[in-house]
Amino acid sequence: MSRYLSPRQSALVPYTPGEQPRGRTYIKLNTNESPYPPSEKAIQAAAEAAENLNLYSDPTCKVLTEAIAELYDIKPTQVICTNGSDEVLDFAFQAFCDENTPAVFPDITYGFYPVFAARNHIPFITIPLKDDFTINIDDYLGIGKTIFIANPNAPTGIALKVSEIEQIVASNPDNVVVVDEAYVDFGSESCVSLTGKYDNLLVTQTFSKSRSMAGARLGFGIGNEKLISDLHTIRYATNPYNVNSMTMAAGVGVLSDEEYTRKNCATIMENRAYTAAELKKRGFDMTDSYANFIFAKQSNLDGGKLYEKLKEMGILVRHFTAPRISDYNRITVGTKAEMDALLSAIDQILKDGLS
Amino acid sequence: MSRYLSPRQSALVPYTPGEQPRGRTYIKLNTNESPYPPSEKAIQAAAEAAENLNLYSDPTCKVLTEAIAELYDIKPTQVICTNGSDEVLDFAFQAFCDENTPAVFPDITYGFYPVFAARNHIPFITIPLKDDFTINIDDYLGIGKTIFIANPNAPTGIALKVSEIEQIVASNPDNVVVVDEAYVDFGSESCVSLTGKYDNLLVTQTFSKSRSMAGARLGFGIGNEKLISDLHTIRYATNPYNVNSMTMAAGVGVLSDEEYTRKNCATIMENRAYTAAELKKRGFDMTDSYANFIFAKQSNLDGGKLYEKLKEMGILVRHFTAPRISDYNRITVGTKAEMDALLSAIDQILKDGLS
Repeated sequence: MSRYLSPRQSALVPYTPGEQPRGRTYIKLNTNESPYPPSEKAIQAAAEAAENLNLYSDPTCKVLTEAIAELYDIKPTQVICTNGSDEVLDFAFQAFCDENTPAVFPDITYGFYPVFAARNHIPFITIPLKDDFTINIDDYLGIGKTIFIANPNAPTGIALKVSEIEQIVASNPDNVVVVDEAYVDFGSESCVSLTGKYDNLLVTQTFSKSRSMAGARLGFGIGNEKLISDLHTIRYATNPYNVNSMTMAAGVGVLSDEEYTRKNCATIMENRAYTAAELKKRGFDMTDSYANFIFAKQSNLDGGKLYEKLKEMGILVRHFTAPRISDYNRITVGTKAEMDALLSAIDQILKDGLS
Repeated sequence: MSRYLSPRQSALVPYTPGEQPRGRTYIKLNTNESPYPPSEKAIQAAAEAAENLNLYSDPTCKVLTEAIAELYDIKPTQVICTNGSDEVLDFAFQAFCDENTPAVFPDITYGFYPVFAARNHIPFITIPLKDDFTINIDDYLGIGKTIFIANPNAPTGIALKVSEIEQIVASNPDNVVVVDEAYVDFGSESCVSLTGKYDNLLVTQTFSKSRSMAGARLGFGIGNEKLISDLHTIRYATNPYNVNSMTMAAGVGVLSDEEYTRKNCATIMENRAYTAAELKKRGFDMTDSYANFIFAKQSNLDGGKLYEKLKEMGILVRHFTAPRISDYNRITVGTKAEMDALLSAIDQILKDGLS
């Protein structure tokens, strides 16, 4: 820390992203990337856009915004595009929370929420998940604070039903409810359909997972026009050209190839079911995941040591040291071959022990 | 505005970027883009990176950071890469200013500084430029506040010497001085060489102008390792994957092609001198610009009306309505052919008048 850093920020603990290893090639099951390449249409569109990089990207993100609006049958004015969904989440903290309107989210959820709150000097309250890691929706009814719910939740993969989210949204009419749907395309229901009915609901999504575009950084928010307009105000006061022109073009490209996305998601869901069944045979306990990862523990295997051993064997998974979840590992669902490699490694570990 | 927007942000006036017209094709001299395409090496590298978008970009920006460090013969730990230089400037406001350490900048400068200050709830003081739009460096000596100086300044293009900046930096040892060198590659001196000597100097630059990559969104900051480390703390608490992998690759590509960049900059400087001389013949007054734009007025032509008339004739320039500069237009230096088209249009206007 330099002696110039503002006391405002001096206690800031940044978010720790998953390892991005260099050098050794791992089977990478630690950051919930898609194992499938981006759509050919995305690749081509990005390559074409690269030829005109001397011109600024469109700050209104017009063509991409219209494509997202078409996908969900909503108006373009209900959509904001951002540099990853982290950016729209950050904007939501800045727009809809302050010292008098704290943020509320589960104790176990996306680890960036408390970091956004801290950086923006916003008080926050965490509500413990139940022992089975599900959300007790009663805890969120009529609480009069800005609510952030990842649905499906991370790193558990457990999803609430739209009807349950609706109860939360309807019971907090004077506060915004943000539903972070980063993992929605792997079998759970989206709340986008509720955004026409409730003016206090913001749904965020990303192109990183289901659309194989983690490296492009593209996220978006959907909500009532006025909510979205507020987020645009923050965006234009932060970085009006927040989405670069290659990413914008790739986003339009992949949306013109929904069949490819749907096929990949279906395969990942199949691989998830296969892996979960195989892990169960090997004594693992798992949450009921609707995401592109499995959250699993085995009572005879220490979570941290299993992570270390798998890494040694060339397989990266994600281990969190936080209380309540340190027995678990979060395992991205990859290809069938990657899942078989994981299962073989686990078989070896179960045979040899974690020494 | 929705009824949910925090009072913190409700008075926020966003930055207004230059027009990005759709439909009609203009000669676009309004946002200081390069008239030359990006380096072939940048285009190719970006296209290759597009094939692996399913993987996250490197949050440490290792390869690009090393390439920038090599360019300036500094250590990679002295460099931070960002989503355009707007992002590193925003991070600097967040890191080095607060209610007790206001920001200071000239009254006429990059219009985003007051917006960053407002969004981050940072008080700021503006110091008037002299009547000839130059900075009186005495105004900045020993003032004990965080100083932002665009050098060359925008929209005037006027540059301070490194020795003048050094006086400001040396006289404010307990405060950070940010030197925004977005336009440094068009004939002025960079202050990067001072970053080894002063721990309170942050230099920011961009790939948007001289490197023909406005659409890629790539900026960077250079300073003392501890300053840079503070900015990384803010970055990891905002958006660890802030630079996408195509932009990162394009950045490395263009840096391997410095000859191309130097050639383009030299041509733009030639075209600037040519255009300035021709405008002078036509009765224009201009600041002494070291940027890729000319800031010019003609006492017989109203600035706003000249902008409107040129737009009608298919040429976009930038007009600011702010006091002291509303007589002027900022004209991006394009190709020789574009400059001749501008001069012809002006000849026509001088002949017909601005009716």
